Amino acid sequence: MKSIDEIIAAALQGEKPATSRLISLVERGDSLAPYILGKMYPHAGKAYYIGITGPPGSGKSSMVDKLVRRFCQKGHSVGIVAVDPSSPFSGGALLGDRVRMNIKKKEYDYFFRSMSAGRIMGGLSQTTREAARILDASGRDIIIIETVGVGQSELDIAKVTDTVVVMLTPESGDGVQIMKAGLMEVADVFVVNKCDRPGADNIAHSLKGMLDRIDSRLDWRPPIFMTSAAMNQGIDELYEGLLDHCRYLKRDNKMELRRRRQIKEELKHHIEAECTRLIWSQIENGRDIDKALDHVWEYRIDPQNAAREIVSDWLRRSAGESWIGGGIMAVG
Amino acid sequence: MKSIDEIIAAALQGEKPATSRLISLVERGDSLAPYILGKMYPHAGKAYYIGITGPPGSGKSSMVDKLVRRFCQKGHSVGIVAVDPSSPFSGGALLGDRVRMNIKKKEYDYFFRSMSAGRIMGGLSQTTREAARILDASGRDIIIIETVGVGQSELDIAKVTDTVVVMLTPESGDGVQIMKAGLMEVADVFVVNKCDRPGADNIAHSLKGMLDRIDSRLDWRPPIFMTSAAMNQGIDELYEGLLDHCRYLKRDNKMELRRRRQIKEELKHHIEAECTRLIWSQIENGRDIDKALDHVWEYRIDPQNAAREIVSDWLRRSAGESWIGGGIMAVG
Repeated sequence: MKSIDEIIAAALQGEKPATSRLISLVERGDSLAPYILGKMYPHAGKAYYIGITGPPGSGKSSMVDKLVRRFCQKGHSVGIVAVDPSSPFSGGALLGDRVRMNIKKKEYDYFFRSMSAGRIMGGLSQTTREAARILDASGRDIIIIETVGVGQSELDIAKVTDTVVVMLTPESGDGVQIMKAGLMEVADVFVVNKCDRPGADNIAHSLKGMLDRIDSRLDWRPPIFMTSAAMNQGIDELYEGLLDHCRYLKRDNKMELRRRRQIKEELKHHIEAECTRLIWSQIENGRDIDKALDHVWEYRIDPQNAAREIVSDWLRRSAGESWIGGGIMAVG
Repeated sequence: MKSIDEIIAAALQGEKPATSRLISLVERGDSLAPYILGKMYPHAGKAYYIGITGPPGSGKSSMVDKLVRRFCQKGHSVGIVAVDPSSPFSGGALLGDRVRMNIKKKEYDYFFRSMSAGRIMGGLSQTTREAARILDASGRDIIIIETVGVGQSELDIAKVTDTVVVMLTPESGDGVQIMKAGLMEVADVFVVNKCDRPGADNIAHSLKGMLDRIDSRLDWRPPIFMTSAAMNQGIDELYEGLLDHCRYLKRDNKMELRRRRQIKEELKHHIEAECTRLIWSQIENGRDIDKALDHVWEYRIDPQNAAREIVSDWLRRSAGESWIGGGIMAVG
């Protein structure tokens, strides 16, 4: 049985079983997770992070497969995190593990990790970010995060990656829907996959029209690539397009600015989570909640105002007391 | 220009424009929202809440339309909240407003409200709950909440309703996916819609098999209704099934227990939100975050541990001070 420090040391050497073990511990919110992340973090930050999102059935898995081959052929070491939202209605993603990553294991240097929303404790985007960071620290220099575009997840991907690829197909719906979902704001690169199908030119045309309208506001105009991952078409162009965006980011400190913004958001998230954790360690077992619950139940006060009363009562009582670390100590 | 109290009084009398106005204010997180909810809440709690979820294209809108007719014919007053997740990939929901609620306005007493995730400040399920509660307080005795089943939303619906209807179609995928998504735990009633299509019997059979396996653990076995909303088949049976579940809930205080559990969760949510609000009013403009951000950026500390340091530093400083209401006063 290896100690956690031995596992961390092995992961930092790029050993796959150790890396996998660390991601599992973080994924399920193990009490060692903060320690692991604290040890791995100083070694991260060297990789280039690519996010790929799009509707179920747009061919994300095949595209990731093709891109991983390209990066490996160029001598890169690739880490892939694929997020499965665990919805019965998301279609392709659930089949993902079975059909994906057809690459012969020995031939290329990559590490594939699928994460299911159902298994993850805590926020999906946070855990995805942490898994990606562990892969980064373990020496992967290209990180690909793949997430199915439903609800909020396709927008969250911009919070954890350098380059966001939005994949569409002729069946993806019209431009109004893309605008409405905020995808125009997060996409750095558009891909119209299954470009041999009828309607592919229409959707490209519609995207182009939308980009024309906001062109003057952009210092990077997202290119549109017509691809067929299944037929291996347009992949080289997309690969070059990703490198272009990476080069663009590296000019004028743009990547630094983007990453600092991401880290600031992450820090805020953790501050809130930490406060919540401390507060529950104080309030949870008190009678305040049961009493308030009775009042709400009797329709004497609404839940939001009841919560405000609980919190301000509790803070009044805490004044003059220190409540750090779970114990309440009288102060001075 | 009416005052907010006049609008609230009008909404409590069941006036639609006033009700609509209050929901809009709450939806966009207006500063009046807590006041509105505080005034409306004591008048709520009388309605029966039905949730309807299912994949895009399962016919939820048509089914809601048919059920609203039934309830209205029986003399009920119905409020409908339809949640649109605003994803480009959710299909039908975006078309919802155009095709839905074909009922002639004068004929029946109902109020339809569509909410788009893109417009909502704060959590989707919380805002949905608040809109439903305003409808309840305005005198609607049946509340129907319709949400497209993607990601987490189909599970959240159980937190705000008395009866959850899960709608499936022959195209919805197999039983494993339903199990995986946790739908078995939230469904009170199953509907296999588009029952004239091939595969309808298969999915009903598969559901039945799953229910058989967990039968002994259930004191309510979710019935399975075969319907065709478009062809008006099976609606009466479903209507009766809903009433059955309502009667079941009213026996042995089951509805009370379910609602108390929901309110407790809601109270916890508000306590966390309130703490977060107070904390940001104290921390936001400090230099703590910028300093920590620099350290994280230089890879000297990871974001989670940096956040813990910020929070504990800040609490140490706050000890002996009261920080209620935004101002810091020395105590003792």
